[in-house]
Amino acid sequence: MVKVGIVGGTGYTGVELLRLLAQHPEAEVTVITSRSEDGVKVCDMFPNLRGHYDHLAFSVPDAATLGACDVVFFATPHGVAHALAGELLAAGTRVIDLSADFRLENADEWAKWYGQPHGAPELLSEAVYGLPEVNRERIKGARLIAVPGCYPTATQLGFLPLLEKGLADATRLIADCKSGVSGAGRAAKIGSLFTEAGENMMAYAVKGHRHLPEVSQGLRRAAKGPVGLTFVPHLTPMIRGIHATLYATVADTGIDVQRLYEDRYANEPFVDVMPAGSHPETRSVRGANICRIAVHRPEGGDLVVVLSVIDNLVKGASGQALQNMNILFGLDERLGLSSPALLP
Amino acid sequence: MVKVGIVGGTGYTGVELLRLLAQHPEAEVTVITSRSEDGVKVCDMFPNLRGHYDHLAFSVPDAATLGACDVVFFATPHGVAHALAGELLAAGTRVIDLSADFRLENADEWAKWYGQPHGAPELLSEAVYGLPEVNRERIKGARLIAVPGCYPTATQLGFLPLLEKGLADATRLIADCKSGVSGAGRAAKIGSLFTEAGENMMAYAVKGHRHLPEVSQGLRRAAKGPVGLTFVPHLTPMIRGIHATLYATVADTGIDVQRLYEDRYANEPFVDVMPAGSHPETRSVRGANICRIAVHRPEGGDLVVVLSVIDNLVKGASGQALQNMNILFGLDERLGLSSPALLP
Amino acid sequence: MVKVGIVGGTGYTGVELLRLLAQHPEAEVTVITSRSEDGVKVCDMFPNLRGHYDHLAFSVPDAATLGACDVVFFATPHGVAHALAGELLAAGTRVIDLSADFRLENADEWAKWYGQPHGAPELLSEAVYGLPEVNRERIKGARLIAVPGCYPTATQLGFLPLLEKGLADATRLIADCKSGVSGAGRAAKIGSLFTEAGENMMAYAVKGHRHLPEVSQGLRRAAKGPVGLTFVPHLTPMIRGIHATLYATVADTGIDVQRLYEDRYANEPFVDVMPAGSHPETRSVRGANICRIAVHRPEGGDLVVVLSVIDNLVKGASGQALQNMNILFGLDERLGLSSPALLP
Amino acid sequence: MVKVGIVGGTGYTGVELLRLLAQHPEAEVTVITSRSEDGVKVCDMFPNLRGHYDHLAFSVPDAATLGACDVVFFATPHGVAHALAGELLAAGTRVIDLSADFRLENADEWAKWYGQPHGAPELLSEAVYGLPEVNRERIKGARLIAVPGCYPTATQLGFLPLLEKGLADATRLIADCKSGVSGAGRAAKIGSLFTEAGENMMAYAVKGHRHLPEVSQGLRRAAKGPVGLTFVPHLTPMIRGIHATLYATVADTGIDVQRLYEDRYANEPFVDVMPAGSHPETRSVRGANICRIAVHRPEGGDLVVVLSVIDNLVKGASGQALQNMNILFGLDERLGLSSPALLP
Repeated sequence: MVKVGIVGGTGYTGVELLRLLAQHPEAEVTVITSRSEDGVKVCDMFPNLRGHYDHLAFSVPDAATLGACDVVFFATPHGVAHALAGELLAAGTRVIDLSADFRLENADEWAKWYGQPHGAPELLSEAVYGLPEVNRERIKGARLIAVPGCYPTATQLGFLPLLEKGLADATRLIADCKSGVSGAGRAAKIGSLFTEAGENMMAYAVKGHRHLPEVSQGLRRAAKGPVGLTFVPHLTPMIRGIHATLYATVADTGIDVQRLYEDRYANEPFVDVMPAGSHPETRSVRGANICRIAVHRPEGGDLVVVLSVIDNLVKGASGQALQNMNILFGLDERLGLSSPALLP
Repeated sequence: MVKVGIVGGTGYTGVELLRLLAQHPEAEVTVITSRSEDGVKVCDMFPNLRGHYDHLAFSVPDAATLGACDVVFFATPHGVAHALAGELLAAGTRVIDLSADFRLENADEWAKWYGQPHGAPELLSEAVYGLPEVNRERIKGARLIAVPGCYPTATQLGFLPLLEKGLADATRLIADCKSGVSGAGRAAKIGSLFTEAGENMMAYAVKGHRHLPEVSQGLRRAAKGPVGLTFVPHLTPMIRGIHATLYATVADTGIDVQRLYEDRYANEPFVDVMPAGSHPETRSVRGANICRIAVHRPEGGDLVVVLSVIDNLVKGASGQALQNMNILFGLDERLGLSSPALLP
Repeated sequence: MVKVGIVGGTGYTGVELLRLLAQHPEAEVTVITSRSEDGVKVCDMFPNLRGHYDHLAFSVPDAATLGACDVVFFATPHGVAHALAGELLAAGTRVIDLSADFRLENADEWAKWYGQPHGAPELLSEAVYGLPEVNRERIKGARLIAVPGCYPTATQLGFLPLLEKGLADATRLIADCKSGVSGAGRAAKIGSLFTEAGENMMAYAVKGHRHLPEVSQGLRRAAKGPVGLTFVPHLTPMIRGIHATLYATVADTGIDVQRLYEDRYANEPFVDVMPAGSHPETRSVRGANICRIAVHRPEGGDLVVVLSVIDNLVKGASGQALQNMNILFGLDERLGLSSPALLP
Repeated sequence: MVKVGIVGGTGYTGVELLRLLAQHPEAEVTVITSRSEDGVKVCDMFPNLRGHYDHLAFSVPDAATLGACDVVFFATPHGVAHALAGELLAAGTRVIDLSADFRLENADEWAKWYGQPHGAPELLSEAVYGLPEVNRERIKGARLIAVPGCYPTATQLGFLPLLEKGLADATRLIADCKSGVSGAGRAAKIGSLFTEAGENMMAYAVKGHRHLPEVSQGLRRAAKGPVGLTFVPHLTPMIRGIHATLYATVADTGIDVQRLYEDRYANEPFVDVMPAGSHPETRSVRGANICRIAVHRPEGGDLVVVLSVIDNLVKGASGQALQNMNILFGLDERLGLSSPALLP
C-alpha cells in the first residue's frame, strides 16, 4: 500500500486526486495539507467525499509528516513545490508535482514566464517530465516528476506522431485550444464567475500564455529541432474539458495519417485514436484518464487537422499524476484509472 | 431630459441601468461613480456598451456633481445610500435606491438583518417602497424611493391578489424561490464560480434570508394583519431569472383564482397574468421589465400554487428602478422599458 | 459472475447501467437490445464506453437470448416490460424494470395515468417496489423488481422518517422538485433542446405528473393512511440531478428532527443525512448512488423543510437498479456503486 | 411604414425578426406564415412576445397575402424561397432571404452542397449578397437579397481587410469557428439536446460544412483571386454567439494591422474594431447587431490572428436582414438595431 501525501488539497486538482485515490486499491492518503483550512475535514469542504474520507482533515504542511509518505503530490500554485521538494527528496520521499514548478528545463525561461526566480534550479536536471507516452521509462526510476499541464498534454499528444517522424513543418504549428472553466482553478476571480464565463466564448492570452513554453519544449524534443507554435487558448462555458484543434502542414500528402496515429498509440492505455472521420467530444472523457484523438485532412490537402480532447482535471492533471505514481511504484498503470467517463 | 446620476455602477444592476437608459428617450446619464474604477470608461469595463457610452467614465462620488442631477440611482451594497441620500435630498435631487437601505420601515429590524445600525433612520418615514403595483400614487410625489428586492418583487406580486382580498391563510405561506446566479452580484466569491454554481442546484439560507423581512412586511401590508412565511431560496444554474413557486391555502375552494389575478393586474403594464394552465418560463422575461404569473389549484383543492417569474436584474432591480423614475417624473411609465425579452 | 441482459439500452438509463456495470466485479453484460440500433456497437453510440465494451453490440430483443441471462434490466419506455417480463420470469430470469410498468400496485390507476391498459396485471402482486431503504428484505427473494422513479426516490426518502412515525400531517405535504434535463430522457424533443432548456427555469405538469401516484402510494404505505401531496416539478438547466424541497407540518415542535433522520438512515449505505444546517448540492451526488438529505425547521416552527438530492440517473434509476441486483443475488450491496461523485 | 411579411416564422430567426421588428418604428409585421402552426398566435408559441404581437397569428403561406407586403423575409429551411421568391418579385414585393437559397452565385455548386437541384437559377444573377459592409450600394436597389450565413458573416468581416488589400496569403487561410447551439435551429435533434450539447465541446463537419463554399466565394471576391480556406466549426455549450478565430499569413510583418482594420471599418455602424490587445467576448454582442473584432500578431510574427464575434441570430441572421431592409427602403441603417447587448 503506497502511503500518499497531498500538499495543497483545497483546489480542483486536490479534490480530483482524492476522488481518484478513493478508488485506488494500492494507495492510501495519509496526510493532506492546507495552511488556510487546518483542521477542516476534507469531506466538509468537498461533500462529494462524504463516506469516503470521513476522518481525513487538512493539516499545516510539515516536512516530517510529509516525509513519512512514500510519495507526495503537490497540487499547489507555482512556487510552493520549489520550497519543499528538496527536503522531501532528501527524506527519500518521491515527489509528483502537478504545478508548473519543474516542467521547464531552463530556470531562466521559468523565471521569465512566472515573474520570479526559480526556487530550486538544482533539481531541474533530475526532474522527469511526466508524460508517460513519451517518458515512461524515465518515470520508472524518477524521484521527482513534473506532471504536464492540461493544454500541453492535449497539444503534445496531438502533434507527437507527426513531429516525431518529421512529417510536419514544425515551424508553422497552430494550436487553437478550448478549455473549460475549471482550468482557471478554484479561485475567486471575477472572470470565472458563472455570470461572466457562462453563455460566453472568448480567447485569452493571445499575446502569450504560460503553457506556451512548456508545449514548445515538448514539441522541440519530439521534432528534434526548432518549433514555431501559435497557441490561442479560449475560455469555454463548461466545467471540465479541453478541446485542442491542431493544425500542421505536411510535406507529403500521400501519408496515411490515420494509420500513423493508430500505430503510434497502439500500446498506450490512455490514448484513444478514434476511427477516421470522428469528432471527439470532451464529454466522452469527462472524469476519465483518457485522451481521444481524431485526425483529419480536409479535402486531402496538406493541412492536417488533429482534434484532441482530455478532461483537464484528469488526463490533464490528477489522473495523469496517478498514472505516473502507478508507473513509479511498479503498479499496473491503469490501477484506479479505469472508470468510464460520465456521459451524459 | 432627466439628468441621471448613478452611484456604484460597476455591478450588474449598474450595467443594467446603463443598458436600459441607453434606450430611454427622455433620460441621460451625466455621472456614474465608482471609487475603485475612477477614470475608467464604462465601455472598457462593460464592452456591450461600446458605441453607446463612449465618453462616460467612472468618477469618485462627489455630492456636488451628483447633486446637479435630477435623480440619482444607488446601485450599491447596503449601507452606502444611508450615508449619501440625505445630502442629495437636501440638494433637491431625487433618490432611487436599488439597495436594501430603505426597504424596511423599522430601523431596528434592518439593523438585526444587516448586522449594523441603520445609518439614516430619519429618512425612513418618507421613503416610499417602490412597488408600482401597490404604491404608484405615493411614488409620484416621492423624494426617496426604495426599489424592492428581486425575490420580494416576484413573491409579493404573486401573493398580493390573494392576500389583499383576505382569501388565503396569511399565516401559512410558502415561497420556494429559484434564482439565477446574477442575484449574487458581480463579486468574486467561490460559490458563484462557474465551476461551483454550474450544473448544480441547491437551497441556501433556509435558516433566514435578508429578503424575508422585506417580503413579510409587504405581505403584512397587503393582508392587513400578521403573516407567516416560509421562504426557501435556491441557487439555480442560470445567469438571470427568478422563479417563485408560491403556496397558499384558501378557505373557499369556490373562488375563481384565474379571474382574481386577471382583474387585479388588468391595468398593470408590467404584470402579465398568463392563461389558465400556463407554466411561465424565466427566459420569457429575460432582459424585459415584466412579471409573468400563472395560478394553479391542483386537483381543485384548497392549495393554490402561484408561479411568478421575473428577470432579477430588470423587474427585480434596474428595470423597476426606471419604472419608478418614469412615474416620478410624470413620464409614460413604459418609456425605455418596452423591449421584448430575449428568447432564446 | 451474474450474467446481465439489458433491454432498450439506447437511452440515458441504458448507458448509465453500462457505465456502472463496467466497474462491477461480479457482473457481466452479455446482451443488450435495441430494435432501431441492431448491429451498432454500444461504444459507437456512446464514445465514453470505448475501451470498455469494444465488442458489445445492440441486437434485436429475443426471448431465448435474454432468457439465458441471470437478470434482465428493462431500460425502456413504459409498456415494453409488460410484454416481455412474463416470458423471462417463466424462463427463470430475474427482471429488474427501470420503467414505470410495475410501480403502481393498482392496474387501473396505471391505466389512467399512462393512457393505456396495463399489459401484465397478473404480475403486479409479485412485483416488489425496489426501494431498498423500505423493502430490502422483500427484494432479496424477488423475481420481479420495479425500480422507483427519480422524483419518487428523492421524495420518499425525504418524507419517510416523518411519516413512518406519524409525526407529520400526511394530508398536507408539498414536494417542490427540481430536475435536470436528463430526466426527460434521450429523446428528440423541442423542450429538451439546449436552446430551450438552457438558461431557463420553469415548472411543468402542475396539473398532474405521472410520478404523483407513485409517490403517493409509497407515502401511504409509510404513513399507513391517506396522503395528500401537492407535487410541483420544475425543469432546471443542468444535465443531472434532482433537488426535492419538501414541506411537512408537524404537530409536535419538540421533536428532534435531525436525530430522527440520522437514526432512520443510520445503517443505510446510500442515504447520507448531513449535519444540521446543511444545504445539499446536487453536484455532490453527480454520478454517485447516494441520496443526501438535510432537514430544517425554520425559526423553530411547525413546518419542517427537507432538502433531498440525488442523481436522477443513479440513485434515481440505474444505480438503484444495480443496488437491487446486488441485494437480489446476495452480493455486497455496495458492489460497483462506491465511486465518489464527480465534483466539480 | 414598411409592411412586412415573414415566411416560416416558427424558428429562431423568425422569433428574432419579430423581437427586433417590435422595436422598429417604421416597419409593421402584417403576415407571418407557417403551415404547421396555422391559426396559432405567435405569442402562444413565443411567450416573450406577449404584449407585443397579441393579435398576430400564423397563417398558411399564400402568394396574394404575401404579395401585398412591401417586403417578405424568408426564415425557412433551404429550398422554400426558391419556390416562392419569383412570384413575389413579380408582384413587386422585395424579398430578403435568410436561408441559403440565393447565397451561392453558381447553381451547380448550390446543388452539390445541398443535395438537390437549385429551384430558381434564373434569379441568381439579380440576387444581391446582403453583406452591407461589402455590398451597401447594390443592396439599395436590390429586389432580392441573400442574407449571409452566420459563420460566413463573422469570417468574412474578419478576413476582409487583409484580403482586399492583398496583404495575406489567400491560399492558406484557417477559420476555427465556435458556434452556440442556436445555430442548429429550433429542430428536435438528439445532438442539440441540453443533455448532449451541454458541458461539451466538439468539432463537427470537418470534412466539409455548407458554409464553406459561401465563405470561400466571399473571400474570393475580396481577394480577387483563388482562395484556400480550412474551415473547422465547433459546437459550443452556449445558446447564442459565434467566435471566429482566424489565421492568416502576411508577407510583410511591417504592416500596422490594427490601423488597417480600424480604417476599413471606420464608417461601419455595425463593426466594432476593438483596441489592440483585446479579446472580444460573444456575450458582448448577445442580442445586438454588431460584429466585434480584435486583431493580433503573436510575437510580431507573420501569422495574424483575428478574433471576430457576432450573435449568430442577429448580425448573423435576423439583425443583418433588418439592416438590409433599412438600406433597401432608404431608412436610417440603424433603425431598430441600436439596443446594447444583454450582459450579463
